[in-house]
Amino acid sequence: MTSEFPHDAVVERWTRGLATLERVAGSAARDSIESLTKDAPELARLAVESFDALYGERATEVLDLRTRELSTVAALTALGNALPQLKVHIRAALRAGATRGQIVAIITQMHAYGGYPAALNAFAAAKEVFDAAEGDEFSF
Amino acid sequence: MTSEFPHDAVVERWTRGLATLERVAGSAARDSIESLTKDAPELARLAVESFDALYGERATEVLDLRTRELSTVAALTALGNALPQLKVHIRAALRAGATRGQIVAIITQMHAYGGYPAALNAFAAAKEVFDAAEGDEFSF
Amino acid sequence: MTSEFPHDAVVERWTRGLATLERVAGSAARDSIESLTKDAPELARLAVESFDALYGERATEVLDLRTRELSTVAALTALGNALPQLKVHIRAALRAGATRGQIVAIITQMHAYGGYPAALNAFAAAKEVFDAAEGDEFSF
Amino acid sequence: MTSEFPHDAVVERWTRGLATLERVAGSAARDSIESLTKDAPELARLAVESFDALYGERATEVLDLRTRELSTVAALTALGNALPQLKVHIRAALRAGATRGQIVAIITQMHAYGGYPAALNAFAAAKEVFDAAEGDEFSF
Amino acid sequence: MTSEFPHDAVVERWTRGLATLERVAGSAARDSIESLTKDAPELARLAVESFDALYGERATEVLDLRTRELSTVAALTALGNALPQLKVHIRAALRAGATRGQIVAIITQMHAYGGYPAALNAFAAAKEVFDAAEGDEFSF
Amino acid sequence: MTSEFPHDAVVERWTRGLATLERVAGSAARDSIESLTKDAPELARLAVESFDALYGERATEVLDLRTRELSTVAALTALGNALPQLKVHIRAALRAGATRGQIVAIITQMHAYGGYPAALNAFAAAKEVFDAAEGDEFSF
Repeated sequence: MTSEFPHDAVVERWTRGLATLERVAGSAARDSIESLTKDAPELARLAVESFDALYGERATEVLDLRTRELSTVAALTALGNALPQLKVHIRAALRAGATRGQIVAIITQMHAYGGYPAALNAFAAAKEVFDAAEGDEFSF
Repeated sequence: MTSEFPHDAVVERWTRGLATLERVAGSAARDSIESLTKDAPELARLAVESFDALYGERATEVLDLRTRELSTVAALTALGNALPQLKVHIRAALRAGATRGQIVAIITQMHAYGGYPAALNAFAAAKEVFDAAEGDEFSF
Repeated sequence: MTSEFPHDAVVERWTRGLATLERVAGSAARDSIESLTKDAPELARLAVESFDALYGERATEVLDLRTRELSTVAALTALGNALPQLKVHIRAALRAGATRGQIVAIITQMHAYGGYPAALNAFAAAKEVFDAAEGDEFSF
Repeated sequence: MTSEFPHDAVVERWTRGLATLERVAGSAARDSIESLTKDAPELARLAVESFDALYGERATEVLDLRTRELSTVAALTALGNALPQLKVHIRAALRAGATRGQIVAIITQMHAYGGYPAALNAFAAAKEVFDAAEGDEFSF
Repeated sequence: MTSEFPHDAVVERWTRGLATLERVAGSAARDSIESLTKDAPELARLAVESFDALYGERATEVLDLRTRELSTVAALTALGNALPQLKVHIRAALRAGATRGQIVAIITQMHAYGGYPAALNAFAAAKEVFDAAEGDEFSF
Repeated sequence: MTSEFPHDAVVERWTRGLATLERVAGSAARDSIESLTKDAPELARLAVESFDALYGERATEVLDLRTRELSTVAALTALGNALPQLKVHIRAALRAGATRGQIVAIITQMHAYGGYPAALNAFAAAKEVFDAAEGDEFSF
C-alpha cells in the first residue's frame, strides 16, 4: 500500500542515518542529534537524512569520506561561525584517515578565502581536538 | 649581501608563484593576477605568494592538489560571494583530476553548511564551466 | 518488502515535493529544480524534500505559509548573497497573501541585521518582481 | 523655533523608542541599550530609533509584531553570528504570541538558507530561553 | 506644540541628510536614495538619517570623513556582497581626499580579513570607478 | 648563490614581521602568532608576512597606521565572527593614536553595513579592552 507518508521508509532512513552519524562522527555526535527529536523532530530528521546522503555509503562511492570531511573542515573554517560543528568534523576527518598535518594544511589554506582570523580561530579549535585526543586512545 | 629586502628572493617567489598559478589554474588565471601588478602590486605579490604556498609543489606533498582544490570549491560554494573565483577553482579541480561528479558531490555537500541557494548558484557556475569545456579540448 | 532504499517512498516524496514547489513558488521554480535531476540528482532530491518539509501542507499546519515566506525573504535579504532565490521567495510571499507593503516592511527591517546595502539590494530585487507582475495577471 | 537639531523631537523619539523596546523585548533589553548612552550615545540613539521604526506601533500596523519577530529570528539564525541578540528576539517572539513550536519551525526552516550548524546553534539558544522561562512566570 | 511625531523635525533631518548624501556621495547617490521614497519611504528615511549621523558634519568632528570612507570601503570589501555600494563609497573616499593608492592599500589589506576573492573583486570595482573618472573631471 | 628557497630572506621577513607585530599589536599578539610555529608553521609564516606587508613601515608610508587599524576594526566589526582579533586591533588602534571616541565612532558606523547586533557585540568587546586598560598604564 502506498500511504501518504510511508512510516517504514522514514524510520529506515532515520535508522541508517543515525548509524552513519555514529560511524563517521562518533557516538557523541549521534547522541547530540538524536536528543533533538523531542523538541525539534523535523530538524533532527532533516539533519540525519542529509548527513547520510553526504557521508553515507552511497555518497562515499562517488567521493571518499576523507576528502568529504576535509572539504567540510574547509567550509566551516572559512564561514567562521560554527566552531562546535567544526570540531565534530575535525574529529571525523581524523577518523576518516586524515592526518593532523593535512587538517592544519586545509585550515592554513582557508586564510585565503575566509581571512586570517577565521583560520587562526579554526586552528585553535583543531588544537583543542588534537590535545583532547592525546590521552584518549579510543576516540581516534 | 643581506640587504633589507632581498630583491632576488622576492623575484624568485614571484616567478615560482606565477608558474604554479599557470600550472594549477591555467594561463588565464595567471594573466589575470599578473595584470594586477601595475595597479595593485602588493595585492598581486601577496596573492601569488599565497597561491604558491597553498597549491605549489611543497604544499601538495602534505596534501594532494585534487583534495586542496575540492576543499576550495567547498569553501567558495559555502561563502557564496565569489563566483568568478569559484569557477577558476572548479577548472583547477578538473585539471587536478577531480571528476565532474565529484565536483557536483562537493557542491551538493555544501547545502548543509551554506544553504541551498549557495549550492544552487555554485552548481550553475559549475555547469557553465562544464559546458564551456565541451568544445575545448585544451582546457581540461 | 522492505528493500534497503524503498523506491516507492522516495518517488512519492519527490512527487509530493515537486507539487509543493509548483504550488508555493510557481512552475518556473519547479522546472528549475527538476532540471537539476540530470546533472545533480542528489542536490535536486534533497532540495525538493526540504522544500516540502518547510513549505508543504504538514509544515504550514504549524506555521502558516505567509509567515514562512516572509521569514525566508528576511533571511535571504540579510544574507545578501542569493538574489535569484530571494526573487523566488518574494513571488512566493505574494502568492501566499503577503502584500507588497509587507514585503517592503520586512526588507526595511533587515537593514538592522544585514545592513543598508543588503536591504537596498533586496529592495531592488523586489521592485523587479513587482514591476514584472504589472502586466502579468497570471503570475500572482 | 526651528533650531538646527530640535532637542524636543530627538528626546521624544528616544523616549518612545525605549518604551517600545521595553514593551517588545523586555526591561533587560531596554536597560542594556540604555546603558550604552554613556559610552556610545550615537549607537544607542540610532538603535533605539530603528527599533521603534521596526517594532513600534506604526510599524506593526503594516505587519504584525509576531511576524516581524519571527522574521528577525529567521535572519539571526541564518546569519549565525549574533546569539545574544537571537535570544532577545526569541523572547520577544514568545511575548508577541508565537508558540515554541513556531519558533522551532522557523529555526528548522533556516537550515535551508544558513546551513545545519547555524540552525543547530540557534536551536540550542532557543532551548536556553525556553528552559529559563520554565520557572519564570513573569517573563512570558 | 509637541505633537506625537513632529513633522518639522523629521523633515529637517531628511533635508539635512539628503544634503549630506549629495555632498559626500554625489548627486547620483542622493537621487538613488530619494527615489526610494515612493515605494520604501521608511527604508529611505532610516538610510538618510543614518547617513547623516555617520558622514554628516557632527560625525566628522569626531572622526574625519576620509577615514570614515576608507573604513566603509574596508568593511564592504571584506563583506564582499555589496559591490554597488562599495563603488559609491570608493567614489566618496576619493571626494574626501583619499588617493587611489590609499584605496588600493585598504582593499589589499582586506585580503587578510575577507580573503583574496573578496579583495580581488573589490579591486575590480575600484578599477571601474577609477577608469570611469578618467574622462570625467566633474565627478572627482 | 640563488638557492630555490633562500633561507636568509625568509628568516629576515619572519624577523621583521615579528618586530612589526610586536610594535603594532603588542608582545602578546606576537607571542600568540609565534607559538603557532610548532604546529602550523606555514600559517604562522603567511600571517606574519602579511602583517608586515599591511602594517609595517613600507605599508604605513602609503597609508598611516591609525587609519589602517581603524579600517580593520571596521571590517572585523562588520564581519562579526572574530571577536578575539577585533580586540587585538582595537588595542592596536589605541596604540596607533586613535581615541576611544574614534573607535566607538567606527563601531557605530558599522551598524549600517553589518547590522546592529554586530555593532553592539563589537562595542562590548571594545569596552572590555577599554576597561582592562584602566589599571594598566603600560599597555596604552
